[in-house]
Amino acid sequence: MSTIKPIEYRDGSAKVRAVFDDIKRTRQLEDVNNFWKYLANDPTTLKRTWESVKQVMAPGALDPLVKELIYLAVSVTNGCGYCIASHSAAAAKAGMTPQQFAELMAVVGMANETNRLANGYRVPIDPAFES
Amino acid sequence: MSTIKPIEYRDGSAKVRAVFDDIKRTRQLEDVNNFWKYLANDPTTLKRTWESVKQVMAPGALDPLVKELIYLAVSVTNGCGYCIASHSAAAAKAGMTPQQFAELMAVVGMANETNRLANGYRVPIDPAFES
Amino acid sequence: MSTIKPIEYRDGSAKVRAVFDDIKRTRQLEDVNNFWKYLANDPTTLKRTWESVKQVMAPGALDPLVKELIYLAVSVTNGCGYCIASHSAAAAKAGMTPQQFAELMAVVGMANETNRLANGYRVPIDPAFES
Amino acid sequence: MSTIKPIEYRDGSAKVRAVFDDIKRTRQLEDVNNFWKYLANDPTTLKRTWESVKQVMAPGALDPLVKELIYLAVSVTNGCGYCIASHSAAAAKAGMTPQQFAELMAVVGMANETNRLANGYRVPIDPAFES
Amino acid sequence: MSTIKPIEYRDGSAKVRAVFDDIKRTRQLEDVNNFWKYLANDPTTLKRTWESVKQVMAPGALDPLVKELIYLAVSVTNGCGYCIASHSAAAAKAGMTPQQFAELMAVVGMANETNRLANGYRVPIDPAFES
Amino acid sequence: MSTIKPIEYRDGSAKVRAVFDDIKRTRQLEDVNNFWKYLANDPTTLKRTWESVKQVMAPGALDPLVKELIYLAVSVTNGCGYCIASHSAAAAKAGMTPQQFAELMAVVGMANETNRLANGYRVPIDPAFES
Repeated sequence: MSTIKPIEYRDGSAKVRAVFDDIKRTRQLEDVNNFWKYLANDPTTLKRTWESVKQVMAPGALDPLVKELIYLAVSVTNGCGYCIASHSAAAAKAGMTPQQFAELMAVVGMANETNRLANGYRVPIDPAFES
Repeated sequence: MSTIKPIEYRDGSAKVRAVFDDIKRTRQLEDVNNFWKYLANDPTTLKRTWESVKQVMAPGALDPLVKELIYLAVSVTNGCGYCIASHSAAAAKAGMTPQQFAELMAVVGMANETNRLANGYRVPIDPAFES
Repeated sequence: MSTIKPIEYRDGSAKVRAVFDDIKRTRQLEDVNNFWKYLANDPTTLKRTWESVKQVMAPGALDPLVKELIYLAVSVTNGCGYCIASHSAAAAKAGMTPQQFAELMAVVGMANETNRLANGYRVPIDPAFES
Repeated sequence: MSTIKPIEYRDGSAKVRAVFDDIKRTRQLEDVNNFWKYLANDPTTLKRTWESVKQVMAPGALDPLVKELIYLAVSVTNGCGYCIASHSAAAAKAGMTPQQFAELMAVVGMANETNRLANGYRVPIDPAFES
Repeated sequence: MSTIKPIEYRDGSAKVRAVFDDIKRTRQLEDVNNFWKYLANDPTTLKRTWESVKQVMAPGALDPLVKELIYLAVSVTNGCGYCIASHSAAAAKAGMTPQQFAELMAVVGMANETNRLANGYRVPIDPAFES
Repeated sequence: MSTIKPIEYRDGSAKVRAVFDDIKRTRQLEDVNNFWKYLANDPTTLKRTWESVKQVMAPGALDPLVKELIYLAVSVTNGCGYCIASHSAAAAKAGMTPQQFAELMAVVGMANETNRLANGYRVPIDPAFES
C-alpha cells in the first residue's frame, strides 16, 4: 500500500459521487474538502461518516454555530491540525466572530489546565454532583 | 508528603478565605466545591486559577451556557472524571437541557472520531483553509 | 543545545553502529529510519528502545501484521505524525491491504467516539465485566 | 438536569427497544450493557451509534478478534475505564487468550513510548514514507 | 474570520505593547515569540496568560530549569509541535545539556508506556498510596 | 479470559521472583507495588519493563527527584489514576516537598493550557527555534 491519494469526483464510483453530491448540496459548496476525498478510498466509511456528521451537526437544541465551536474545542484539545484548520473555517462560515473565537480559545485553554489540576490533586467528586 | 487533604473555610488562611468568599459570592453558593478546597493547599495557584476562571467564564461574546458546554466537551475528551461531574452540574445549573446534553455528546463523539480519521488518512490541509 | 541532528552510520560510535547493524539485519533494510538516527544521539536509549521494540514486535501469539495494526491504531489515536507515516509503511510492508487499512481506521475512529460517549454519560462498569 | 440514569428495556420507547433487541440478537446476549442503557437517553444517538458499531465491527478484511484488539488498544491509550473493562470482556469473548492480551499490552505500551520519543526528538518523516 | 495573523509590536495597542515590553524585559529578548504575537489578537488572554506564565515559571521551590523540563515533558506528551520547539529552546537557554534532554525523553517515553500498562491491566491503587 | 489477578511473590515463577527480588532490593521495599504484581501475568513484559524503568530512573544528568517529578507530570497530563497515586508517593519518598508539588502542578496545568492555545491559534514555529 503506497501513500493514500485523494479521490476526485470525476474518478469516484457512483456511491462516492452520491455522497459528494449530498455534501455539496447540503453545505452549498462547489467541491468537497480533502477530508471527504481521502475518506472516499473507503466508500462505506465515507457514507457512514457523512450521514453521521450530517445528522449530528443539523440544527437542533443547539444551534449550528455552537456545534461548530464544540467541534473546534475538541479538535484543539486533541491537536488535530487538519481538523483545527477545517473547523475554524466552518465555524467562521457559521458566523463565529473573532471575539467569539478568542473566548472559545480561552475556555478551551482553561479547561485543559483545570482538568490536570483536578487530576494531580486527586480531587474526589463532591456528593452534590452525584445526585 | 502524605495524600493531599482538602482545606475547609474555617481552616483557611486569610488569602484562602478571601478567594472562597469571592467564589461563593460570584456563584451564589453556600460552600465551594472540592476542587477549590484541594487547590487551597497552594493559595497562590488557588487565587490565580479562580481569577482566571472567573474572567474566562464571565458573559461575553459567548454566553455562559455555551462556555459551560465547551468546558464539558474538553473534559469529556480528556476523560477527567472530576471535571465531567462538576461541569455537567455547572452546565445544568446554567440551563443545559437533556436534549442539549445529548447533542453535545453526539458532537463530541463525532469530533473525536473524525479527528482520528483525518490523522490516519493523513489528510493535507485544503489551500482554501489557509487564506 | 541547538536543534537535534540525525546521526548517520558513518558518524556513529561502535555502540550506535551495532544497533544500526542489528536493525538492518532484522528488518532487511539498507538503512535505518530517521527515528533511529535521531535516537542515536542517546546510544543508551537507542539500544534499549530497539531491543524492546524487537522483542515486542517479534512473532508470538499475535502475528506481525496484527501488531503493526495495533501500533498504527495507537499512533493515530495520539496524532503522532511521524509514527503514523512510519507505521503505515511498516504495516503495508507486513502485508496490510487497503481494505484492512480502511477497516482499521473505521475501528479506531469508532473507538475514539464511543470512548467519549462512555466518559460523558458517566457509564458505570457492568458487574459482569468485573468477575 | 440531574445525573443521568440508565434506561431499562421495560422503560424504553419502541425505538429504544428495537435497538436493544437488535443488539441482543446480534451479540447473542440476554441483556445489553450499561453503555447502551445510558445512551438510550438519546434514542437517535443510540440508534446511530449501534448501527455504526455493528457495521464497523462486522467480519471483513479484519476478523472480529483483531477488531476487538484494536478497540481495546485505543481504549487503553485514551484511559477510558469503562471501555477498557467492556472491550477486555468483548475481546475475551471473541477468543483473546491471556498471551494475546499480554502481547497487545506490550505493543500498546511500546507505541505510546515511541510516539513520544518521535515527538520529542522532532523526527522528520523519511522521504521513503511519502511516496 | 480569515486565518489569524500575528500582531507585531508596531501594530499593537497600548495594552499589547505593555505585555510585549514586560516579556522582553523579563526574558531579556529583542522580540517576543510567535506565540505571544498570535495571542495578541486577544489582549485580555495575552495579558492573563503572560502574567500566569510569569508567575508559574519564576524561581521557587523548583528551579527554572526543572520547570522548563516539566513544561517540555507535558508538551511532548501532548504532541504540541510549536510547544516542543519553543520549550526545547527555552530549556536549552535555561541550561539543559544534551544528556539532560536525553534523560528527560527517556523518562517521558517510559511514563507514557507504563501509564498504558497500568490502564490496560486495570491495576488497583495500593492502599499504601492512599494514606 | 476473566479479570486479571495480581500474582503474589509466593505464587510467582522463578523468573517473576527474580524480578520482584531485584525491585525490592533496588527500592528497599518489603513488597512490590500492585503494578508489578499485575504485570507478573506476563513475565517477559515484567522483566523488560522493570529493567527499562530501573535504567531510566537511575541517577544521571538528572537527579532522581527531578525524574520523579517528570514522571508525575506525564501521568497527570494523561490522567492515569494509578500512576498519579504511585508516582506521587514515589516523588514524596524521593524528597518532594508540598511546595514543590504545588509548583509542579502549576507548571503542568499551565503547559496543558498553552499547548492548546498554540494549537488553536495555529502558531507557526519561529525560525529561531529551528536553527
